[in-house]
Amino acid sequence: MLQSWSETAPLLVDVAMGRKPADLVIRNGRWVNVYSGEIVPNTDIAVAAGRFAYVGPDASHTIGEGTTVVDAAGRYLVPGLCDGHMHVESGLVTVTEFARAVIPHGTTTMFVDPHEIANVLGMAGVKLMNDEAQSLPVNIFVQVPSCVPSAPGLENAGATLSAEDVREALAWPNIVGLGEMMNFPGVAANDPKMVAEIAATQNARLTVGGHYASPDLGRAFHAYAAGGPADDHEGTTVDDAIARVRQGMRAMLRLGSAWFDVAAQVKAITERGIDPRNFVLCTDDSHSGTLVQDGHMNRVVRHAIAQGLKPVTAIQMATLNTAQHFGLERELGSIAPGRRADLIVTSDLAALPVEMVFARGRLLAEKGALIADIPAYDYPASAKNTVKLGKALAAADFDIPASGAAEVDVRVIGVVENQAPTKALQRRLPVKAGLVQMDRAGDVCQIALVERHRATGGVVNAFVSGFGYDTDCAMASTVAHDSHHMIVVGTNKADMAQAANRLQEVGGGIVLIAGGRELALVELPVAGLMSDERAEIVAEKANRLVDGMRACGCTLNNAYMQHSLLALVVIPELRISDIGLIDVTRFEKTDVIVG
Amino acid sequence: MLQSWSETAPLLVDVAMGRKPADLVIRNGRWVNVYSGEIVPNTDIAVAAGRFAYVGPDASHTIGEGTTVVDAAGRYLVPGLCDGHMHVESGLVTVTEFARAVIPHGTTTMFVDPHEIANVLGMAGVKLMNDEAQSLPVNIFVQVPSCVPSAPGLENAGATLSAEDVREALAWPNIVGLGEMMNFPGVAANDPKMVAEIAATQNARLTVGGHYASPDLGRAFHAYAAGGPADDHEGTTVDDAIARVRQGMRAMLRLGSAWFDVAAQVKAITERGIDPRNFVLCTDDSHSGTLVQDGHMNRVVRHAIAQGLKPVTAIQMATLNTAQHFGLERELGSIAPGRRADLIVTSDLAALPVEMVFARGRLLAEKGALIADIPAYDYPASAKNTVKLGKALAAADFDIPASGAAEVDVRVIGVVENQAPTKALQRRLPVKAGLVQMDRAGDVCQIALVERHRATGGVVNAFVSGFGYDTDCAMASTVAHDSHHMIVVGTNKADMAQAANRLQEVGGGIVLIAGGRELALVELPVAGLMSDERAEIVAEKANRLVDGMRACGCTLNNAYMQHSLLALVVIPELRISDIGLIDVTRFEKTDVIVG
Repeated sequence: MLQSWSETAPLLVDVAMGRKPADLVIRNGRWVNVYSGEIVPNTDIAVAAGRFAYVGPDASHTIGEGTTVVDAAGRYLVPGLCDGHMHVESGLVTVTEFARAVIPHGTTTMFVDPHEIANVLGMAGVKLMNDEAQSLPVNIFVQVPSCVPSAPGLENAGATLSAEDVREALAWPNIVGLGEMMNFPGVAANDPKMVAEIAATQNARLTVGGHYASPDLGRAFHAYAAGGPADDHEGTTVDDAIARVRQGMRAMLRLGSAWFDVAAQVKAITERGIDPRNFVLCTDDSHSGTLVQDGHMNRVVRHAIAQGLKPVTAIQMATLNTAQHFGLERELGSIAPGRRADLIVTSDLAALPVEMVFARGRLLAEKGALIADIPAYDYPASAKNTVKLGKALAAADFDIPASGAAEVDVRVIGVVENQAPTKALQRRLPVKAGLVQMDRAGDVCQIALVERHRATGGVVNAFVSGFGYDTDCAMASTVAHDSHHMIVVGTNKADMAQAANRLQEVGGGIVLIAGGRELALVELPVAGLMSDERAEIVAEKANRLVDGMRACGCTLNNAYMQHSLLALVVIPELRISDIGLIDVTRFEKTDVIVG
Repeated sequence: MLQSWSETAPLLVDVAMGRKPADLVIRNGRWVNVYSGEIVPNTDIAVAAGRFAYVGPDASHTIGEGTTVVDAAGRYLVPGLCDGHMHVESGLVTVTEFARAVIPHGTTTMFVDPHEIANVLGMAGVKLMNDEAQSLPVNIFVQVPSCVPSAPGLENAGATLSAEDVREALAWPNIVGLGEMMNFPGVAANDPKMVAEIAATQNARLTVGGHYASPDLGRAFHAYAAGGPADDHEGTTVDDAIARVRQGMRAMLRLGSAWFDVAAQVKAITERGIDPRNFVLCTDDSHSGTLVQDGHMNRVVRHAIAQGLKPVTAIQMATLNTAQHFGLERELGSIAPGRRADLIVTSDLAALPVEMVFARGRLLAEKGALIADIPAYDYPASAKNTVKLGKALAAADFDIPASGAAEVDVRVIGVVENQAPTKALQRRLPVKAGLVQMDRAGDVCQIALVERHRATGGVVNAFVSGFGYDTDCAMASTVAHDSHHMIVVGTNKADMAQAANRLQEVGGGIVLIAGGRELALVELPVAGLMSDERAEIVAEKANRLVDGMRACGCTLNNAYMQHSLLALVVIPELRISDIGLIDVTRFEKTDVIVG
């Protein structure tokens, strides 16, 4: 257990004075100093009790019998990288497995908002992830989710967090603030719950995370800033970034698996000369495949440098700036006395090969491989039995009846390539034996929202277009933002039933069935959202899923993501929830059959 | 009473949305944006309940019937200036009168360490000044003094603050941290009291003020940084500044009445390319004359710009950087929504004429003159009867006896022009009728430390050289750093007695007597340190004092400061305290007569 600076200070002072030996000394490095913005050559570092005790030209006086001495041989010493905003659940792995995956990439600090698990397990889920976070040898700070459910009245999630719940959780250890305030219309409208949550966070002297997902930089934007959110990662243009910084908000620039918002916004610094100190880099959502193949914050920093940022500036944006934003500057984010001894050794500041990773003075990874023993984390049974359908589903549960006519006009959710918003389509479909039929040739298949939190047996059926499935198949997922019921999309009702039942059997996940055969399965037993296997294994299984979807005719770029967002009833135009088909332009329920 | 951002947020949001009118709108300004580092033209500002509600291109929708509208006519809108480290007592006026003096210069926030009053009245004195600070319409945050007395064992001050006292006071409202940790050898030696005070401050998530008054940048300096102080204003060279910033400490650059540490250190930015974000401007000590004639933080910012800093950078160093350092970035230090509406209107960013000063949305000063009604603050009798000599002093109280010989060798405190350290001189002086005689021709006169806190009647007598007094005279002062007993320096014992008695009569201050005639008197009834009159009046009286000292033959540049520092038994080489003559190279008592 890491002790605080105040507890450790007498030891650090003794080490700096040469009265006691350091645990670790790294000699002859190039100190990437994020405070001064310099590279300081010929620097030695002494570490004791997991914190920097001395950083300067010569630490020989701190070396004793038990001191481990590492020769940096002129390589750069970079503070451990910080991810300013992210969701662990997006990696489909536990916090532990996420950490195992990203530590070799040099990430030693993450600020995570566990709002996916909160939608399934409520505060108990947040607490589980916060407990897990604190068990790890790197810094994983947790924000209390602000908007659970994300669309009250339009959906019933697995749990509801009240403003009072949020206020209480803000006092837990390891909590650094409020998770992204996605209800930006609510802030501008002084929604009492949002106002109360922000006030509780400010009163606790913690940080209010923002999420202003609108191109409107007029009154609503100014009102949002006046309401209290202190950062935003939803900007996409250079003017978005500048507007946020001018209002005193941190512009968080995001490079996730499917977010590419750094290149445009970093021009605020490289072309428009804006002070970089209020810019922070983050990933938001990283798939396990990205973590395994491409990296994490090292990928973001490298990308930012490739856009023309000075390396030290890009590193500040993933270290000191982030720490300062969360009030943790005296705790981490730099190589300076008293701070947690988190650092990377690298031989090239632009390409950023991560050759050694230390956290709290302990060597955790070397040459891209984890060398520390980080045991898997056991979630309790209560977190693992969350797929409750109430019954075994049959093909008939997916029937969409229509009385009378031979054809009906139906509303169809239209998936749009590379975009989160859907289109509200209408199609004319045949009716046979009182049931509306799918139109495989016209790329209209069925979608079902299967209630899975309270075993109500509820199945909401509707139509979707855009996946391009051209064979008998069905895909089901218990990752179904944000309420995380189960979404089943299929061309064949028997496959749909089989897929849903299979996910109940394995406790959640993603499965693809084609003509009764299981093409791919990603088991996600923790809350139906996360695997407890290694990221490499999850990435492999996810690859098989993508391959399977392609084999079934789906050619979308991010097919699985499109699937899992179809219940996100805060983004227009047409979505599905456990209460029915939702018109997300008018924020109300609508009918499948045009009446 | 200003409400918090969280309390005000719904109103601010309503104003930003145009649903409720602003109290104040300033139109058509050039927004000096300390977050982005830009000057943004054509900016409107709307203020409600003392906070910024809207800052953007057009606030017309926030103007209602009761809204005061000010046309900035293209002038610059600068955040109110912050003084990062200062002592009110140095102005010889109360907090209220200090504020009255500096508001017209654009200072709207001060971080003050009341360690002078603490040496006289202990925690009660700190509380009085903290209460007074909170009564004012500008932001005056208080640090808990860390080193009272400053030299335990070598002096008895009026009070002692224990680590426990400090810990308790850290929880008071308006307290922002620990005052300058002057006992830097104590930090490097893990002195338990210093360790406990720093730990209490860190645990309270507040800021530990530093004071590392040594040119040694070796182990002791690194140990000091590891011990916890988060800033330092004692640097004088460019390398001092860079060393502090590299270690994660804020370099506070000081321009006081007698401190000139900005020009050399600002070269770290202008010539060495160091990131300016961790530099903060401050005054430390300003005499009332400086405040009346030259200015306050506007003088410092102007001077920093004259050294080659970009105006926006210099302004950041007196606004955002300061606020960030004390964890108050979301409260002040910028013109941004939610923050206290503290700002200056100026037509020139380099010359910085302070044309209007708003604090919390209220116009306090215009064209260099205070226009707000700020009533004088009444200190209780307990703060005003602090000069307790125990008896009326007579000339004989200043006798220095010597037995036997006609001449003796004595130790003499040697004042050095323009320097704080003294020299430990030795002189041979005649003895007449058993008393050692002064040597006016040789510029050796007497100094006495008169106990004034506990009415012990104690008088410690010794010799001093360097003032150049060439006539019968005596000067007495109850400002006598840091213990603030009474220092009397004179060529004539009757004048010395008269001066001391006069100060008891008026409750403390500074007086100059020449041949029985009072040449000047500055009454300082509050703790014997501060006048409750206006700064202009105090400055006038202080001028008469300087004139009087010159008339008596003293040609030192800062004669009064030299006088008041002669009991500061932490600076070498020879000083005086209530326990005797102190050798401040060996930190022990010594004898006047060389034995």
